[in-house]
Order: sequence, then structure tokens, then C-alpha cells
Amino acid sequence: MTTILHIDSSARRTDNSVQEHNSISKTLAAYFIDKWVTFNDEDKVIYRDLGLNPPEFICQDWISAVFTPDDKKTDKQKSLLILSDTLIEEVVKAEVIVISSPMYNYGMPAVLKAWFDQVVRVNKTFTFDLARGDFPLEPILSGKKLIFISSTGEFGFEIGGIRENMNHLGPHVKTLGKYLGVEEFYEIKSEYQEYGDERHENSLDEAYLSIEKLVQQLS
Amino acid sequence: MTTILHIDSSARRTDNSVQEHNSISKTLAAYFIDKWVTFNDEDKVIYRDLGLNPPEFICQDWISAVFTPDDKKTDKQKSLLILSDTLIEEVVKAEVIVISSPMYNYGMPAVLKAWFDQVVRVNKTFTFDLARGDFPLEPILSGKKLIFISSTGEFGFEIGGIRENMNHLGPHVKTLGKYLGVEEFYEIKSEYQEYGDERHENSLDEAYLSIEKLVQQLS
Repeated sequence: MTTILHIDSSARRTDNSVQEHNSISKTLAAYFIDKWVTFNDEDKVIYRDLGLNPPEFICQDWISAVFTPDDKKTDKQKSLLILSDTLIEEVVKAEVIVISSPMYNYGMPAVLKAWFDQVVRVNKTFTFDLARGDFPLEPILSGKKLIFISSTGEFGFEIGGIRENMNHLGPHVKTLGKYLGVEEFYEIKSEYQEYGDERHENSLDEAYLSIEKLVQQLS
Repeated sequence: MTTILHIDSSARRTDNSVQEHNSISKTLAAYFIDKWVTFNDEDKVIYRDLGLNPPEFICQDWISAVFTPDDKKTDKQKSLLILSDTLIEEVVKAEVIVISSPMYNYGMPAVLKAWFDQVVRVNKTFTFDLARGDFPLEPILSGKKLIFISSTGEFGFEIGGIRENMNHLGPHVKTLGKYLGVEEFYEIKSEYQEYGDERHENSLDEAYLSIEKLVQQLS
């Protein structure tokens, strides 16, 4: 049995009366999960909708708590880390992580960044050791697959694309995945949303097809 | 008289009893402002500490409100946009914007992303017109200078550096600055914080020196 962690981060819902108001990234991620569960029917899905339930921002006391050894943490510090502990436990349990995200202002929504800031944590998801020299960070977790499903209004964010240097979404998530034990990264993209033309329709069609193929490949 | 918008985003404060717990990016930004005010004594500073007072996350109703023409906005929609209106007004007033930020997980703190998501707004800071073809966005504001002051634990995030492709902080802020009317972008960096060695001391010294030079150059 595989445990899948499914993280949505769009501010939009998927049950609006006007279909165009629905989140594309959430809709695609739901399709992925649906197909996955059909292929692997005993799997367990842990679900978080960060858009509807945003994580807390980290604060100075949170940082102090994180750097305090476990046996010296005060009760107040422990309680400050409850959300982080819970979110990390979900990452630890998951062999497959599905993160869906719209591109907001050329990066991830603030709620998704808030989630990463809660889960990428010293001595929990990575260790820090200056004996390693100029590369002191190493992930603790390993062997995870991350499927990143994104929706962008514009296009050309791929390597060599006309907006490559404006892309702080997929490459950023890929960078962070390493510190959650991700060893296989897959990205599925819907582009051109704000043009509302055939290119968008084609991009969506391709995204659905890629999801079907990827589920078969990974199942 | 110049109006300066000063945005801090570290979760750390600058008045801790243990000096090493103080925010480096905030300390450097305060130094910039102090020097600036000395050189340009009639200038006005608008200050926001996002670490202590995080902006709200945007939500689906916020997005709907933004896309509703002003004369059709309901009272509820108008009230949802009060923070955004206020933050944008501060950007509009400012000729010089100083943003300080630590690198958290290879990007900006979630509070800073939340601020950008509140201020980069259609028909307020940029227009959207498909008649422009594949590049439908254009900034409304213009002529602003952005001084971005960052602090990173690691190093080598510059172009050609060993961590160039992990840098989703400065290049991301630079990309977004355009949509706030920024035409001149300057970055001042403190690096190597987590090594705590001479390289960090040198980097900090250079940052202070760069601030002094930049204030003189821009004043």
C-alpha cells in the first residue's frame, strides 16, 4: 500500500457555479488522484487544501523552537511546532507527494510557501553539519516521488522558453523537494489560461493525457 | 522630497538580547534608511514589518473582487480589498522602495510573497490586454527604484555561482518589481550566515559598504 500526500494550494475552489472560476491546478490534481486510486485501489490519500486552510506563517519564536534541542524545548515551544510536526509527519508517511499550484506572480502562492516553511525543518527533514564543508545540508528522508501539477496564465516558462527566467514556481518546488526526500520529480503543466484560446485547450488536453500516462508509469 | 517605502520581511526582530538572533536583513535595511535620511533629511519613510504584521493571504473572494469593475464591487468586496488598496497606495506614493528579506528555503518568506500577492494587482499596478498579443501585461506605475537587501545562510547564488539555479529570491523580486513600476533594481547581499566564519564577516562588511555607496549614488 502506498500513501499519497495530496496538497492543493490554489485560492480557488472547484465547485463554483461558473466553471471558469474553478481552479485548474486543483481539478488536474483531483484527476491524478482519481486515476491513481483506480489503478492502485488500496492506497491511502492524505489531503490538504492550503487555499481553504492556510498554514500559519513561521515567526521568530518558531525559529527559536526549531533550533532548541528536543529535550530542552519548553511546552510553549512544543505547542508552537504542533502544526509543523503534523505536516512533517504527513510528508514522512507519504511515498508519493502530489502538489498542485497555480502560478501567482511568477511563483508559488504564499500559502504553499508557508507550507514549505513549516515542513522543511532542521533535524526533521534535513541535517546541517559544517563538517560537510560548503554543502552542509543533507536530506534525512529519501525515495519519495513528487508530482507537481501547475497552472499558469502565460506560457514559455520551460528551459529555453521565452519566460524561462521568470519561472520561480516549478524549479523552486523541485529545489525544495530534495529536502523532503524527493528523488523523482515530475511536472505536469497547464499553460495559456489567460489567453483563453485553443492553445489553452490543447495545453489542458495534454495535461490530462500526461496524467494518465504518468499514473500508469508509476503504478 | 522623496517618499521611501521600507518593507521588512524577516521573522526575526532586531532587539534580541542575543545579538546573533537578530535579523541581518532588517539590520542592513535599517542602516540603509538611516544613511538615506542623513543624506536626504526631508524624506518621508513609510514602514512595514511583515514579519511582525503578516498580510492576509488572498482568497477566492479576493480574486473575484479584483476582477469586478470598481462601479460594480459590492461593499463586501470593497472591504476585502482594503488591505490591498492600502498597500498599493504606499507603493504608488514611493519613489524608492527598500525591501529586505532573508532567504527562507531558497525563496522569499511567505509573508513577503503574501505582500506581493496583495500589491501586484490588475488595473492598479498593471493592465492586461490581449491586443498586446503574447505579452498582454504592462505595468501602470513607472520610474521607481527598488533596493533589495537580502541575507542568505549559504552562498554562490549569483549568476555563474554554484547555487545560481537554486536562487528564487533576488531574481524573483526583480521580476515582480517591474509590475510595481520599478525601472532601477539594486541588490545588496549578505551571504554565508550559517557558516559563521570570516567569509560571513567579509560579506557583511561589503554589504555595509555597498549601502553607503548606493545611498550616495542615489541621493
